[in-house]
Amino acid sequence: MRALALTMGDAAGIGPEIALESWVRRREAGIPPFVYLGGRDHVERLAATLGLDVPVKSVAGPAEAVDVFTDSFPVLPIALPAPAVCGKPDPSNGPATIEAIDRAVELAASGEAAAVVTNPIGKAVLYRCGFGHPGHTEYLAERCGGASPPAMMLVCDGLRVVPVTVHLPLAEAANALTVDAIVRCGRTAAAGLARDFGIRAPRLAVAGLNPHAGEGGHLGREEIEVIGPAVDILRGDGLNVDGPSPADTLFHDDARQDYDAALCMYHDQALIPIKTLDFFGGVNVTLGLPIVRTSPDHGTGYDIAGKGIARPDSLIAALRLAATMASTRAGMSDALA
Amino acid sequence: MRALALTMGDAAGIGPEIALESWVRRREAGIPPFVYLGGRDHVERLAATLGLDVPVKSVAGPAEAVDVFTDSFPVLPIALPAPAVCGKPDPSNGPATIEAIDRAVELAASGEAAAVVTNPIGKAVLYRCGFGHPGHTEYLAERCGGASPPAMMLVCDGLRVVPVTVHLPLAEAANALTVDAIVRCGRTAAAGLARDFGIRAPRLAVAGLNPHAGEGGHLGREEIEVIGPAVDILRGDGLNVDGPSPADTLFHDDARQDYDAALCMYHDQALIPIKTLDFFGGVNVTLGLPIVRTSPDHGTGYDIAGKGIARPDSLIAALRLAATMASTRAGMSDALA
Repeated sequence: MRALALTMGDAAGIGPEIALESWVRRREAGIPPFVYLGGRDHVERLAATLGLDVPVKSVAGPAEAVDVFTDSFPVLPIALPAPAVCGKPDPSNGPATIEAIDRAVELAASGEAAAVVTNPIGKAVLYRCGFGHPGHTEYLAERCGGASPPAMMLVCDGLRVVPVTVHLPLAEAANALTVDAIVRCGRTAAAGLARDFGIRAPRLAVAGLNPHAGEGGHLGREEIEVIGPAVDILRGDGLNVDGPSPADTLFHDDARQDYDAALCMYHDQALIPIKTLDFFGGVNVTLGLPIVRTSPDHGTGYDIAGKGIARPDSLIAALRLAATMASTRAGMSDALA
Repeated sequence: MRALALTMGDAAGIGPEIALESWVRRREAGIPPFVYLGGRDHVERLAATLGLDVPVKSVAGPAEAVDVFTDSFPVLPIALPAPAVCGKPDPSNGPATIEAIDRAVELAASGEAAAVVTNPIGKAVLYRCGFGHPGHTEYLAERCGGASPPAMMLVCDGLRVVPVTVHLPLAEAANALTVDAIVRCGRTAAAGLARDFGIRAPRLAVAGLNPHAGEGGHLGREEIEVIGPAVDILRGDGLNVDGPSPADTLFHDDARQDYDAALCMYHDQALIPIKTLDFFGGVNVTLGLPIVRTSPDHGTGYDIAGKGIARPDSLIAALRLAATMASTRAGMSDALA
């Protein structure tokens, strides 16, 4: 068994404490071994502050982490230039946040770690120390040298969604929607479902953009001019694709039985159903990378950091899903070998 | 007890058969007495076709409907110029569809009926016979002579939502959003919650338009320039209003405990959570009319009409809610008298 590489994220956010909380629940929650990449002192102090009985142990890498995980919280130490203060992000710690990501990616790329699980970063803070990427995912894609842009998938119990457009003002989402973007997302989603989820013939549902999926063009023409043609291309690939369907018909219990992932046209179309169904346990998965990467589906939580009230549910789900995906991927490549 | 006035809607749609199915379940579903306004022959033939044991009885009005409801399906007959054929809407029956609405409104306005419950109409069909209103709700508003435009509320068990913009292409929703529209909707929603739902100090949650509610302006400025100022005005009215909040944080179980209705910025932001939580039992309520009006939260269902597979859940919920709202409204006006 290989350990997961878990990054600290922003040391001033809730990442370090939900990592500790996850380790505390490792047995009952069935959490696979991980190695934490981040500041050792901070996590040790935090455990004491929060009254968590967590023996922190420095390790050389994922292999040693597996050996000690039962009894200790394994840390691959990354020095923080400034003491981390919960709720007070400090740009001088930004390079350490990035180093943790870089090391995690290297460990997964080399096969030493099974997958990367990233804690939330504060983009505004990283921008101030020269980070030039729109976000975590784009940075990882560049580090991994992936051939095509990755896709974001949100996963909760019973639902997987892939937003085609993501962090854009709503008024710009319609313009950003292209046949090419939908086709690329659909292909990445289908490939990811096959490789990492073991679904050999994945079924995709495609949501419309407009109310009632445009009602035959009366409430918008994107379904006719953009989404429909993209669906045709995906079907031409031999994929099992249904849609575009009115978004409000896609997410109830019965509807969700009919597909393996829903392709959504904008951020909230994907996020509203996921977070309505499972607010605390959703996982963010990056598809289309050479490595397996998951992350909790929430932000840095500066306002609650260090108070012992942050819920580790999403990180726990992210750790478990990363391990399952990594082992599925390994099994699939064995099967293909 | 006063009967509800239930319109047939489009006779070629599922309205007539879900009315019959509701009557069949009147006892176990606790359905209040209603009078059906529509073609008597059609509903009688339909019952026979569907193998439903429903004695149809013509009545003079709501009062007689109450007397016969236990044993018969009461119809206030409205002649259909052409025989209705399930699934084949016929513009020559359009005027009868409209007459049913008009009669129902008169009965509710005069106090003879407790409320109006409308079955789905086929707008495209009505347009072809000269119907000049964007939809059912606008037509009712005009017939009722309401002072200000009504608001649409969707209700399911545990959630009420009010979309500020409704049947618009998504790309136009952002432009259609004005301070005035949000304030008007918020006031109508608050007044409706007080008068028809008996909630004396209603709590409104207001959703943002953009991902993460605009993230401080980085992902859109409508929250700062339009929605925030509208919230301030509503608070200035003395209303309990929270927001704008990221839409994906508003609809999970815990979040829904904190408000009585959510003001949503566009159609699917309101409809996705309602239909995810309760696809079959949602009810459409028109607030701001002098009468109480509800309707099932689905369309004419031409494709399944007459096959006996249409589910009456939403109509049953609409009938029950209309009766409860009418009795709350009557109680509130007694209390204020």
